[in-house]
Amino acid sequence: MKLENLRTLFNPESVAVVGATENQKKMGCHAIISVMESFKGKIYPVNPTRDQIFGLKAYPDPDSIPETPDLAILAIPRDHIYDTVRKFIDRGTRAFVIITAGFREAEISDGQELHERLKNLVESVNAAVIGPNTFGMTDLRSGINASFTPALFQVKKGDIALISQSGGICHLLVPYALRHGIGFSKIVGLGNRLNVDFPEMLEYLAHDENTKSIALYIEGVENPKDMLQKIREVHVKKPVVAMKAGRFEKADKASRSHTGSMAGNYRIYVSALKQYGAVIAETLEELISYAKALSMQRPLHGDRIAVISLVAGLGMVASDTCELVGLRMAEFTEKTKERLYEILPPYTIRDNPVDLGFVANDPDVCGEVIEIVADDERVDGIVVNYIYSWSGNFLEVPADSIINAAGKKPLTACINYPPDIWDEVKIKLEENGVPVYATPEIAVRSLKALRDYGKLLSRE
Amino acid sequence: MKLENLRTLFNPESVAVVGATENQKKMGCHAIISVMESFKGKIYPVNPTRDQIFGLKAYPDPDSIPETPDLAILAIPRDHIYDTVRKFIDRGTRAFVIITAGFREAEISDGQELHERLKNLVESVNAAVIGPNTFGMTDLRSGINASFTPALFQVKKGDIALISQSGGICHLLVPYALRHGIGFSKIVGLGNRLNVDFPEMLEYLAHDENTKSIALYIEGVENPKDMLQKIREVHVKKPVVAMKAGRFEKADKASRSHTGSMAGNYRIYVSALKQYGAVIAETLEELISYAKALSMQRPLHGDRIAVISLVAGLGMVASDTCELVGLRMAEFTEKTKERLYEILPPYTIRDNPVDLGFVANDPDVCGEVIEIVADDERVDGIVVNYIYSWSGNFLEVPADSIINAAGKKPLTACINYPPDIWDEVKIKLEENGVPVYATPEIAVRSLKALRDYGKLLSRE
Repeated sequence: MKLENLRTLFNPESVAVVGATENQKKMGCHAIISVMESFKGKIYPVNPTRDQIFGLKAYPDPDSIPETPDLAILAIPRDHIYDTVRKFIDRGTRAFVIITAGFREAEISDGQELHERLKNLVESVNAAVIGPNTFGMTDLRSGINASFTPALFQVKKGDIALISQSGGICHLLVPYALRHGIGFSKIVGLGNRLNVDFPEMLEYLAHDENTKSIALYIEGVENPKDMLQKIREVHVKKPVVAMKAGRFEKADKASRSHTGSMAGNYRIYVSALKQYGAVIAETLEELISYAKALSMQRPLHGDRIAVISLVAGLGMVASDTCELVGLRMAEFTEKTKERLYEILPPYTIRDNPVDLGFVANDPDVCGEVIEIVADDERVDGIVVNYIYSWSGNFLEVPADSIINAAGKKPLTACINYPPDIWDEVKIKLEENGVPVYATPEIAVRSLKALRDYGKLLSRE
Repeated sequence: MKLENLRTLFNPESVAVVGATENQKKMGCHAIISVMESFKGKIYPVNPTRDQIFGLKAYPDPDSIPETPDLAILAIPRDHIYDTVRKFIDRGTRAFVIITAGFREAEISDGQELHERLKNLVESVNAAVIGPNTFGMTDLRSGINASFTPALFQVKKGDIALISQSGGICHLLVPYALRHGIGFSKIVGLGNRLNVDFPEMLEYLAHDENTKSIALYIEGVENPKDMLQKIREVHVKKPVVAMKAGRFEKADKASRSHTGSMAGNYRIYVSALKQYGAVIAETLEELISYAKALSMQRPLHGDRIAVISLVAGLGMVASDTCELVGLRMAEFTEKTKERLYEILPPYTIRDNPVDLGFVANDPDVCGEVIEIVADDERVDGIVVNYIYSWSGNFLEVPADSIINAAGKKPLTACINYPPDIWDEVKIKLEENGVPVYATPEIAVRSLKALRDYGKLLSRE
């Protein structure tokens, strides 16, 4: 029932924005802009002191809206939240995004009490609430940005659902994603998790056809067992990557004031998350990079890796990183070695890591090498490293061969180049399931995430 | 004497490009374009089969050039290298960039022999040679791009000298730098290090007024003691950051084929590098990020860090990272705590990590907080984390206060935002000595690099 209301929350046909205003100093201004820039359905700004907001007819209160809105977004002072939610519930609205802060996370005497009252109210009708104390959420696939950040909707449509206990982390990862062309299905700031928490989101996302991998940023939850149990259920269908903050005491304390929960012991959390089926990320860059690999590639079964590089230096760094993270450098079969000796000149390293340096100007030979290696039965996974040099007219990335190889073995790529030069190549590769990264280290670590997921699956 | 010729190499008044051609399939084409796009002095293309190259008069051989060029760049088949260098030496040229490969790194019987003959030749007159087997070098301050990659000269002029044993690594770091606005004084690919190796470059850079920090990418050298000795001499004047490749056997083997030297035992290398005064980077991102911090900021003496964040989540991640890398979270004085309690509302975390979340819309208050913390005698260094949210008109970064704070205590910043929004702020901060990073983790690690440097200096 709540799950059904969650579906409405992410796919509304009509939206009320309470606190909508043209005053840029208010969150309600940015919330209404976000909705107007993203949402094709009916929009009802609610503001008792204005007739119009950005050209839309405004309504003085929930009761005056001509229909029951599917979703209500609230950006009004905390003392008005309860009554406003009640009015919407009386009308039949069952999905809410409450941006307003000042509940149990705050050093205010009645913060916890207000939280409980509000929770009882919405639970009585199984309404679904994102927040309070959140930027909100955006669903890039259905087309709704119910947040105070219009820029969230500029992110590429993709297959990653990012579920975060911190809005700030989303606001860091979003520009990161914008710069790296990483796509999302949904970005959700859970805030104080009144009645939509990690377990509810995991259950919902398990059945969300637009989501192929789930990235969780966790500070701390009241009932970790519920979350863990859901991860166990979901991860066999879809990969779940988790980053846990609050590794040390100071951050742990900060968590309490942040979204009202203790972060708990880091090591216990992380080992439980692993045991229940999550791939673990240690940094924000890893969280988003692993989710990307897992949304595009299949799990890696086996740890024998081939490294192929346009230049030897990158091959060395990638090889080092493979062994550092617990992958192994594959020993090629004699057949592969013979074939590489036939087509690569003597200046080149014709073993693993494979150096394409002296055939760099012949993309056909480079492509042939990549496909030969992908056919080697002793190779489980591949990292390809390409960098731009010489002129744009001269060097070509053998994109088709990389895509073919990725069809045979799990593969990640490090491809770096001055802005614009290879954007089309990168887009082509990623549209065909090859995740592209900016450094060999993160390309290898992302392949390792595929391996972690493979291990989790083969336990079942 | 060789050092004087190295000075000429980086500051030539006339340059010959041997192998210059308009055929885009040849390195000589890209080498002449690089020179033409960067160099204001006299350029002499050398090509026996053309009268003109890109509108410049071409010369059939070194002897026919009307003056003695200061620098000769060679991109011709290896079998012609020796005689061509000899001709230039006879004319008086004492600086060379030899791009051509196929010397001791290659599986060719006379590779090592040719290397030795060439070395004897150039050493007899103390000429300075970058290469062979290199992309070349670019000096962004004097204005010469003696490489086969015209794009190298698009990098921002800055204070970091990047000296790399791998050209590929430079070609990865250059686009990385382009995207992150990181500036360089010089980028040098040492290649086979005929007679200009890490020690010579370190000695030269110690006196180079355009270079404030030195980044070394090392695979392996024949005489590590010479390099270490120079690091010991140089690091007290200028910070040296080193990344060592060849951590594991496979990469180590690859090194031999790459630039003709064994990489050696990683752990021995790294502990020696540390002992002799280098700050150690473990990844390419760290190498360039640490070099940036060290080029802009003073060393950090003390490990008590204050974390200030616009949003709590980033504060938690930054705090975690501080403790993970061996920094400590500062305990503020009572005076600081009192002042923070006065100006921050109760919703906010008014301790370390400091949360600016609920005053985010008031840059003056945010700035005041930053300066109060910078004045705390129990704070040795600061990490500031800002992310974009709401609208561009609303949130402002208190840049002046961050700059003031950085004048009092070593400081790094994580500032991330959708493309374009805060570019001017970032440029202003960096022009005033505040290094800006894309994630809290790398901002904290870069502050740790300042601490590592501080420790190295206080041993002396």
